[in-house]
Parts: sequence; C-alpha cells; structure tokens
Amino acid sequence: MYPKSLDRLIESFLRLPGVGKKTAERYAYYIVNNFSKDDIEKLMENLSGVKDKIKRCRVCGFLTEDDLCEYCSDSERDQTTILVVEEPKDVESIERCRKYHGLYHVLNGSISPLNGIGPEELNLQTLFKRIKESKIKEVIIATSATVGGEATALYINKILENEEVTVSRIAYGMPVGSSLEYNDETTIMKALEGRKNMR
Amino acid sequence: MYPKSLDRLIESFLRLPGVGKKTAERYAYYIVNNFSKDDIEKLMENLSGVKDKIKRCRVCGFLTEDDLCEYCSDSERDQTTILVVEEPKDVESIERCRKYHGLYHVLNGSISPLNGIGPEELNLQTLFKRIKESKIKEVIIATSATVGGEATALYINKILENEEVTVSRIAYGMPVGSSLEYNDETTIMKALEGRKNMR
Repeated sequence: MYPKSLDRLIESFLRLPGVGKKTAERYAYYIVNNFSKDDIEKLMENLSGVKDKIKRCRVCGFLTEDDLCEYCSDSERDQTTILVVEEPKDVESIERCRKYHGLYHVLNGSISPLNGIGPEELNLQTLFKRIKESKIKEVIIATSATVGGEATALYINKILENEEVTVSRIAYGMPVGSSLEYNDETTIMKALEGRKNMR
Repeated sequence: MYPKSLDRLIESFLRLPGVGKKTAERYAYYIVNNFSKDDIEKLMENLSGVKDKIKRCRVCGFLTEDDLCEYCSDSERDQTTILVVEEPKDVESIERCRKYHGLYHVLNGSISPLNGIGPEELNLQTLFKRIKESKIKEVIIATSATVGGEATALYINKILENEEVTVSRIAYGMPVGSSLEYNDETTIMKALEGRKNMR
C-alpha cells in the first residue's frame, strides 16, 4: 500500500481526462522522485493562478484574465468577421496558421443530444446578439468535422437565415499530405463534393 | 495566445513524464473547464501533502510518511527474505499477487551506463548492509527483464558471492495467457532455458 498522501495525489490525477490508474501513479511517482519542493510549489502556484484569474471573455467566450480577451480588445482586427469554434484551443489552431485576422466566438462544445447538450447549453445567445448588434458581415463556422460539429453548423445557419450576413463553413476534404488510399470514404465523398474548378 | 496563467499551468504539466504540448493543454483546459475551485484546492492540498510528507524508508527505500515503511515495520512479515525491485511501484505489483510475505528493497533504478547510472547511484549500500547485519537467508532479485535490470541482478549476485545467502532471480518466460506466436525470440529462448521438469 502506498502512503496515504501519495494515494490522495493519485486520486487527484485520476480526475484528468484520459488518465487511468497507471498514468496517475506514474505522474505522482514522478513528482515524488523528480520534482523539487520548489517545482511542486510552482505547480501549486500555477494551479492557484488558473483558479483565481482565468475567466471567459464576456463577448466571445474565449479564456482571458481580463474582462475582454485579447482578440475582442484588439481594434486592429477585422471587426466584420466572426469565426465560430467549439473550444478555446481551436482559436489557437486557427491563429497558428496566421491567415485569419477577424474576431472569434467560442461555443464551448457542440450539439450532442446523447450527452444532453442542446443549443441552450452552448454559448450561442451572445453570438446571435453580436451579429444583430454590430457590423458583422461574415460568420465563418469552423466547428469540428463530426456529427455534432455539423449539427451545430446547420443550427447556426438556420437561425441566421434572415440576418443580413454571409454564413460560411470551412472546407471538408483530404488533409494536406495525405493520399486517397489513407482517407475514409466519407472524407473522399466530401472532398469530391467540395471540388473546385481549377481554371 | 492563451492568458498567461493558463500558459504557466501548461508549462507545469509539460514537466510530467510522457506529457507533450497537446496533452498539457488538454489537462490545463480540463481543469479550467471542469474543476471547481474546491477541486483545484484539493489537488493543491494533495501536492502539498506529497511535498511535505513523503520520504524514503530509511531501511528499504520504499515510500513512506514515517521513518519506516509499512513493510519494514510489520513484524508479521518473514524477516529472512528480501525481494529487490527497481521502483516503489514494483512493490505494489508484487503485493498485488498476494504470494510474497517477506521484506523489500527498492533500488530506485537499474544500472544504465548510457544514462550515467552506475551501482553508486542505486540504493545498494543499504542492501548489502542489511544482508550483512541481519538474519537474511534469501535475496530474490526482481529487477526488470531488461538489459539494465539484468546487469543489476548480475552485479548484486557478484557482490554477494561470499555472503551466506541464497540469491535468486525471478523467472523469465512466456507471459501467462500468451501463445508462442506472439512472443519474441529472446523471450522464447529464455522460456526454453528456464524449462521445468514436469514430473
């Protein structure tokens, strides 16, 4: 049997996503073996920092330490476009390709009736309010290429059908660098449907 | 860009073994999204518990909150046998099979010249001292079935060659439930070498 304090730390790590008994034990051991007291204090401080400081941007739902997130408070960004994603980390993925300079909106999930997540559970009301009340010209829906992501995209498109705004969906298709052989039928079908004229 | 406090938590998680950028982000997000303030405080408490309370048993090197671990302080256990393992978690693996009732000795690793780990880096001196000074009759070496584990076993056996003590090594062979087809040649060779007369 492990000492109680180690057991309790293992219990805490078990709460993290995708962490089972073995991994939780491994993390706890590693901390006991390889973290100095300072390292552990730092981790505790950082946890405390997240607990006290992180909140949602009241406009777009992205994470921030202030009232507005860095994108909403950046007047240099294109104020006429909103890109809609499921999770805060999706914002980082889009930013990484350095191609998009508009605003964001984070839904915090996608429609998933099986998990009891309907449109009411998502950060949608503020999205519709933003579109109605400001000078938005295009809404780019970048939810996942999954059933839930697609349902969410269709739902948003439906609600916005009477608004004077362009609603677009990012493209489905073969990932760059992949060959036909390694793509599934649905992806190939979507890639075919989404084909573009080359001249 | 993430808020700074989130970035710092991600940095902390990156220090855990086998955790890369994606996983660290996932953990940090999960904590922001799904942990209540109480949950975070609990995790911090548990980290603090480990930092303040966990130490090595001064006899065997297993983890404990006291001076002696629960095995060394248990007089019901067979005081004439020591089972030698690499890591504290190996003790748990042995305990789980409920077959062994002697004492333990935790080396904290195995000989690995490539990583700069020689016999001096292992918890070996106290092992030899224990064997010399107490009534140990058998030393069972249960280091890993790896090059380092084997080297460590040979080293211990060599050092103990003039002591009046039986030194044994746990068996190499096919894992129970496996078939020849799925075992590699070295395992099969070792299983052949270690064959036992059936009558």
